[in-house]
Amino acid sequence: MTKLAPPIRVTVWSEFQHEKNNPKVAAIYPDGMHETIAAHLSGSEGLCVATATLDEPGHGLGDERVNNTDVMLWWGHLAHEAVDDVVVERVHQRVLAGMGLIVLHSGHFSKVFKKLMGTTCNLKWRDEPGDREILWVTRPGHPILRGIDDHFVLPQEEMYGEYFDVPEPLETLLISSFGGGEVFRSGMTWARGAGKIFYFRPGHELYPTYHDRNVLRVIENAVRWAAPTPPPKPVGYGRRELGWTESRK
Amino acid sequence: MTKLAPPIRVTVWSEFQHEKNNPKVAAIYPDGMHETIAAHLSGSEGLCVATATLDEPGHGLGDERVNNTDVMLWWGHLAHEAVDDVVVERVHQRVLAGMGLIVLHSGHFSKVFKKLMGTTCNLKWRDEPGDREILWVTRPGHPILRGIDDHFVLPQEEMYGEYFDVPEPLETLLISSFGGGEVFRSGMTWARGAGKIFYFRPGHELYPTYHDRNVLRVIENAVRWAAPTPPPKPVGYGRRELGWTESRK
Amino acid sequence: MTKLAPPIRVTVWSEFQHEKNNPKVAAIYPDGMHETIAAHLSGSEGLCVATATLDEPGHGLGDERVNNTDVMLWWGHLAHEAVDDVVVERVHQRVLAGMGLIVLHSGHFSKVFKKLMGTTCNLKWRDEPGDREILWVTRPGHPILRGIDDHFVLPQEEMYGEYFDVPEPLETLLISSFGGGEVFRSGMTWARGAGKIFYFRPGHELYPTYHDRNVLRVIENAVRWAAPTPPPKPVGYGRRELGWTESRK
Amino acid sequence: MTKLAPPIRVTVWSEFQHEKNNPKVAAIYPDGMHETIAAHLSGSEGLCVATATLDEPGHGLGDERVNNTDVMLWWGHLAHEAVDDVVVERVHQRVLAGMGLIVLHSGHFSKVFKKLMGTTCNLKWRDEPGDREILWVTRPGHPILRGIDDHFVLPQEEMYGEYFDVPEPLETLLISSFGGGEVFRSGMTWARGAGKIFYFRPGHELYPTYHDRNVLRVIENAVRWAAPTPPPKPVGYGRRELGWTESRK
Repeated sequence: MTKLAPPIRVTVWSEFQHEKNNPKVAAIYPDGMHETIAAHLSGSEGLCVATATLDEPGHGLGDERVNNTDVMLWWGHLAHEAVDDVVVERVHQRVLAGMGLIVLHSGHFSKVFKKLMGTTCNLKWRDEPGDREILWVTRPGHPILRGIDDHFVLPQEEMYGEYFDVPEPLETLLISSFGGGEVFRSGMTWARGAGKIFYFRPGHELYPTYHDRNVLRVIENAVRWAAPTPPPKPVGYGRRELGWTESRK
Repeated sequence: MTKLAPPIRVTVWSEFQHEKNNPKVAAIYPDGMHETIAAHLSGSEGLCVATATLDEPGHGLGDERVNNTDVMLWWGHLAHEAVDDVVVERVHQRVLAGMGLIVLHSGHFSKVFKKLMGTTCNLKWRDEPGDREILWVTRPGHPILRGIDDHFVLPQEEMYGEYFDVPEPLETLLISSFGGGEVFRSGMTWARGAGKIFYFRPGHELYPTYHDRNVLRVIENAVRWAAPTPPPKPVGYGRRELGWTESRK
Repeated sequence: MTKLAPPIRVTVWSEFQHEKNNPKVAAIYPDGMHETIAAHLSGSEGLCVATATLDEPGHGLGDERVNNTDVMLWWGHLAHEAVDDVVVERVHQRVLAGMGLIVLHSGHFSKVFKKLMGTTCNLKWRDEPGDREILWVTRPGHPILRGIDDHFVLPQEEMYGEYFDVPEPLETLLISSFGGGEVFRSGMTWARGAGKIFYFRPGHELYPTYHDRNVLRVIENAVRWAAPTPPPKPVGYGRRELGWTESRK
Repeated sequence: MTKLAPPIRVTVWSEFQHEKNNPKVAAIYPDGMHETIAAHLSGSEGLCVATATLDEPGHGLGDERVNNTDVMLWWGHLAHEAVDDVVVERVHQRVLAGMGLIVLHSGHFSKVFKKLMGTTCNLKWRDEPGDREILWVTRPGHPILRGIDDHFVLPQEEMYGEYFDVPEPLETLLISSFGGGEVFRSGMTWARGAGKIFYFRPGHELYPTYHDRNVLRVIENAVRWAAPTPPPKPVGYGRRELGWTESRK
C-alpha cells in the first residue's frame, strides 16, 4: 500500500493589467496569463492550484492565502509600485519560512524579488518587434529541466540582455541568446532562508509564450522543485544544555 | 488514478573489511555496515536496494550493475588502493551521466571521490577514543535535512577537522563541532556532469553511527535528493540548422 | 620607474555607543572601536583612513563622504534602528556601484547588511560570560587569509551559533567553534552588483578583540580584497547596432 | 618609502604545434601564440614572464620551473595526449599548493584541466569558417574585468557552445554569443586547494585573437588575480593541545 504525498498548494499571482487593456494581449490570454499557467498546472498530478491578481482585495494575497501556499508564481510589469508593501513583506517572510517562489519575466523588477536579491535587478531590453530566443541548457540533470532537450527555441520574445544585476546564483540552468547577439541567464536558482527561488525569463505579454510546451514544462518542474521542506525546529537540548538564545524575532 | 514513480535503484557499496577482521566492529555490524544501511533503506517506500562489496568479483560493480543504479553509496577506508581503476572509471562516468553518489565518512579518500573533486580531499583527524560530535544545520529547508532538528548529537565519533581540501560546494548543509574544538563541513553537495554528489561525514566503524536515526534519515533523504533526472538530449534542430558538432567522445 | 597605485580610501563606521556609556567597554576602547581599527589600518601602506559615527550629523555618511569611500567597515549593535533610511539607501547604492563593505560582528543586524542579503540575518547567541572561540581556515590561499595560520584562537568572545540566516556565500573562509559546542561561519564573502562584501564575526564590545593581531590582519587583508574595480561602462556599439536600452534608473 | 611587492612569476605554456606546421597560423603568430602573449605580459609592471612548450625536454616544465611559477597559462589542442602524466601530476599538485592556472581556449581538453574539474569538459563546436563572437560581462567589478566595457566583440572566432561540462563555477564573468545563436560561459573561476583557476574561451589558432587588446587585458588581469596567497601553515597549538593529525601525504 502506498502513502500519497499531500498535494503542493500553488498560487499563480499576476498583475493582470495588460490583458484588460490591450486587445493584442487579450487575444492571446483571454482570461489572463495566470489562468493559462494555472490551467496547465491544474492538469498535473499532485498540484492544487489557485490564482490571485492585483485588483482583488489585498491583491488576493491575504494572510490565510499566503500561509497556505507552498509555491507562488509571480508575474508583474506595469504595476510593481502598486503592490502594497504589507503584502510584499508577507510574501517575503513566507519565502524565508520555506515557500517556493518562481519569478517570471518582468517580475525581475517586482518589489519582492528585489527585496530577496538585495540588488537593483536591472538588465538591458529591447522594444518590439520581438527576437528569436534560443534557451540553452547549462545544468543537465537538474530537476527543473526534466524532459527538456539541450536547447529550445521561442520564435518571438522580448530581448533581455546582460548584465542582469542579481547575486551570483546557486545554479545557472539556462542561458538565452537573441537575434541581436545578446545573452541572458534565463534560468537561475537561489536559496533565501528556507525558501527556494527560481527566476525564469520568458513571458512577454505580446507573445504566446505561456502556451509553449517547453515553457510550461519548465514551470511545472520548477513548482515541484520549489516545494518546501519544513525547516528544522530548534530543540531543547541546545537550549537547556548549551544555554543559547535564538535572536529570531 | 495515480501513476506511481518507478522505484529508485540504490546500490550500497562498502569495502567490508573491518567487519571481517575486527571483532569490535563485527559486534556493531555483524553483516557489515552496508547491510545495516541497506536494511534501513529497504524499509523505505519507492527504493529498490542492493549491496556490493570489495571482495565480490569486480567488486560487485560490473557494467550491468552500475548502469542499473540510480544512486550509489560509497564507504571505504583501508582498501582504497585495492579498488580497480576500471571500476573507478565506470562509476565516475556513470555519475557524470546522472547517477547520484553519496560518499560516507572515510570514503573522502576513495579514488572516485578524489577524481570527481580534483583535489587531495585531505583533512585532519584524531585517533580514538572518539569525540562527541554535534552536527548543526546550515541550510534549513534543504530536502536532505527533512525531519532533522536544528542540530543533532552523536555521542561518540571520530574527529575530522578542517581544512577539508574539497572544492567550494554548491551547498553547505551541516557543520560539526568536536570535543577538541575542531569543526568540519559534514554535509556538502556538488554537481558533476548530470550527477548529484553528497558527502556525509559520520560513520567511523567503531561506533554505532549507522544505527542512529538521524544519520539514517539524512542518508535516506539524500538518496531521494540524488536520484537522477535524465540529462537532456542534443536535438536535430541544432545539428541541422546551426551546424555544430558535439565533442563528446 | 614604478607607478604607485592610488590609495584605497577607507571609512570605518561604528555606532560608538557602548564606549560612551559602559566603563568596561571604554576601558578597552577609550576612543571607540573604530579608532582602534582605524589606527591599525592607518599604519598600513596605501590605505587612506577616516572614521564616522552615529552621533555625527548625517551619521558622518553624507553624499560626499560615501561617494569618496572605496571600502567601508560597519559595526553596530544597540542602535541599528537609529540609522536613517536615507543613509542606508546611500550606502546600499554605493555598494552596488562597487564600494567594498566589511560587516563586523553585531553588524549582522544592521539595516544595510539585511538589505543586501535579503534575509533575516538571524543567528543564535549566548550572554556573557564569553567563550573561547577557535577560528578555522576553510579556504586556504584566499587573499583575506594572507598570513593567517590554519586556525587562531580568541580566548574570550561572545558565542554566535548557526543557523545564520544569510544566503549561501560565494566563499566560506573561516568557521568558528565555541565552548558550548556551537559552530558559526565566521568569514564569508558575497558579491552584490559591482561590490564585494565580507562578513567577519568577532568583535564583541566587552573583549579586546580589535587589539588581536590576527583579527586586525584579517580586517586589513579584507580591505585590500574589497577595494573596487571600476564597473564596466555600456558602450556605443551595442546601443547603435543592437538597439538595446538600459533599464538602470 | 614604499616596499615593492615581489614580481609575479608567470610561465606561458603552449603546445606550439600549429605554428610550426600550418603557414596560416605561422603568419599570425610567427614565434608561437605563447610568445605573443608573453611579449604583452612582459611589458606589464611587476610580472616576470617565461615560456615553455611541448617539444622542450620535459615540456619545459621541470620541477624547478614549476615550483618557481606563481601563475601558469595553458594552451593546447592537437597534442593533449602527448603531455607526460608526470608533468600533469606536477602541475596539478602545484595548483593545489597555490599556483594560479589560466586555461585558454582548447586547453579545456588538457589533462590537467580535466583532472582539476573532475568532469569531461566536453562542449559543442563548429568548424571553420569562424563566427563573430560577442563577450558580455556578467560580473561587473571583478578584478579580471578591470578596464573592460560591458561587452566586446571578436570579429572571427571558433564557435564553442553549451553545455560545457564543467562544475558550477565560483563566478561566471563572461558569456559569449555566436553567429549561429549559440552561447558559452567564456570566463569562469574556480578554486582548487589553495589555487585559483580561470578558464578563458577565446583563442583559436587561425584568428589573431591574442593580438586583441581586450583579450590581452583580460589575460593580464587574470594573471594578477590568480597570483597566489601563501596557504596557511598548521600550527603547534592544535597539534599539542588538541592532538590531531594531518592526513596530508
